[in-house]
Parts: sequence; C-alpha cells; structure tokens
Amino acid sequence: MSETESIGFKAALEEAKKGFSEGGVPIGACLVDKDGKILGRGHNMRVQNSSATLHAEIATLETAGRLPASAYKGATMYTTLSPCDMCTGACILYKVSRVVMGENNTFVGGDDYLKQRGVEVVNLQNAECEQLMSEFIRKHPEDWYEDIGEPEKGHKH
Amino acid sequence: MSETESIGFKAALEEAKKGFSEGGVPIGACLVDKDGKILGRGHNMRVQNSSATLHAEIATLETAGRLPASAYKGATMYTTLSPCDMCTGACILYKVSRVVMGENNTFVGGDDYLKQRGVEVVNLQNAECEQLMSEFIRKHPEDWYEDIGEPEKGHKH
Ligand SMILES: [Ca+2]
Ligand SMILES: [Ca+2]
Ligand SMILES: [Zn+2]
Ligand SMILES: [Zn+2]
Repeated sequence: MSETESIGFKAALEEAKKGFSEGGVPIGACLVDKDGKILGRGHNMRVQNSSATLHAEIATLETAGRLPASAYKGATMYTTLSPCDMCTGACILYKVSRVVMGENNTFVGGDDYLKQRGVEVVNLQNAECEQLMSEFIRKHPEDWYEDIGEPEKGHKH
Repeated sequence: MSETESIGFKAALEEAKKGFSEGGVPIGACLVDKDGKILGRGHNMRVQNSSATLHAEIATLETAGRLPASAYKGATMYTTLSPCDMCTGACILYKVSRVVMGENNTFVGGDDYLKQRGVEVVNLQNAECEQLMSEFIRKHPEDWYEDIGEPEKGHKH
C-alpha cells in the first residue's frame, strides 16, 4: 500500500480540507503509532483561534495529549506540508520515527534537519495538498506569511 | 544592567515559580520586543493542562498571539531553562533575535543549534532556576522525563 492510501495521510488531508473550509491555513496532520493506531490529529488554527503556535503538527501532538516517550517510538507524523522549524523540532523532541509530508513545493521546512537528526522523511508530492495551499495563499497571502514568520511577499503566480 | 535584573528574566522566573506552586514543571518564559515591551509570558502547562506542547516558550508565543514577522525582530525570548528542540525551533521560526536562558545544567537543549541559525544565546547560570528544577525532578522525575521525551531515568543525585 502506498503511503498516500494510509489512514494517517488520509486523516491529515481531511484535516487540511477542514481547515480550508473554516477559512484557515489548510495544513493538516495526524500522528500514527507503530501499530497503526491514530494518537492524534489536527489542523492549523492560526486564523480560527488567533493562534501563533497551533500549527497542524503541534495541534496533533496536543490532541494526542500527555504520553510517555515510549508511545512515540516507531510513530509517524503525517503532515500535508513540509514542517516548519517549530514542528520539525517538536517531532525531534518526541523522537517520532518518521515524517511523511504531502508536499514541499509550497514551502521547504526541516526536511534536511529531520534526516540529520535521524528521522526518516518521505515526500508524497501530492497535488491535492499543493492545490489547497496555492488557493489559500492566493487569497490570503498575509495569513500565510505570518504563519511562517516571513514579511508578506505579496502574491506569487 | 545585568540580564538577571531585566524585566524579561524577572517575569520568566516569576512564571517558573508560579508553575512550581501549581505543581507543574517549573519552567517560565517571557518574550520582550526590541523596545523592551513584554509581548507574552507563560509557563510549562504539562501537569496543569495535560499539555504535551505548552512548554514555557510555546505558552509565551501563544499568549503573545498572532503577530507579523516584524514584531519578533530584535526580540528576546527569556526562558529559565535551555530550550528543548521544539522551543528552539519555535524561536527560529519566528526569528527571535536572542535567547536568554536561566541555566543549562539541568538540561541542554538547542543552545548550539540556535547559534548555528543566527540566534544570540546568553546563559545566566542562575542558581534559583536550577534549584526549582532540582526540587521538581527529585519529587516528580516521571513528569520531567515525559516533558523532554525521554524514558524515565529515575533519580539522579
Ligand atoms: Ca486575509
Ligand atoms: Ca509525580
Ligand atoms: Zn509548523
Ligand atoms: Zn520546549
């Protein structure tokens, strides 16, 4: 089975779409443990909650709640977009074994640093993830650039 | 004026003590902008909120709320302990200019990586910060090891 068909990626993509429908930054994530059980899922809440820290991966770890280190062992963080430095650091903190990202055309985050720190990285180059982001950034560039801590660069076509 | 006397460090230490009095992991933080204004402050909420992501620095960034990239320019993140990989990444994401830590004897987080990514790092080697952590870890080692994503190592004297 391709990772694109996994429950983790499907859930992450559902979360991204939910975020999009709420008018939020359409990035979703899902944490799946070594036995294939979903530990948590969530989406970016910058717009919805005026949150500077609830990126999809952080929202997912928060939903998963307090867990011992052993719970993250062998786990995979699915995310629809390459994780930013904060979310990269969160995956490293909890020693998540793998990060499966929908795409990294919209934004390249910690792909290399994750590998350097021993995390397996898979990029699905998924067109649907990219389309959600392209549409959002076209409409709300200021929300997107704020989310990645960059001065607004305006529209890019 | 020494950084130990700064409003940012004083607020971070107050937050750590507040966390301690609540029975939580006694780490506090405070974000101060380039003009010396406090943007946000907070403390670790693992125990109090069953939170896996509200480390002191994340709680602080969350309290500061949605801000444009320009707001973090020249800002200092004060934290009573060397920041973990997640909080290190959060400071890098928002391009905080400086991280002033109370101490790094209890735990060494992203000190080197922050410097590598262009963030100025100051260590105050503050005994009060270290004492709060020593007392907490002696009483609740399991909460502390969970907070840094490590299997419990038991008491260390
Ligand atoms: Ca807008
Ligand atoms: Ca305890
Ligand atoms: Zn992120
Ligand atoms: Zn942290």
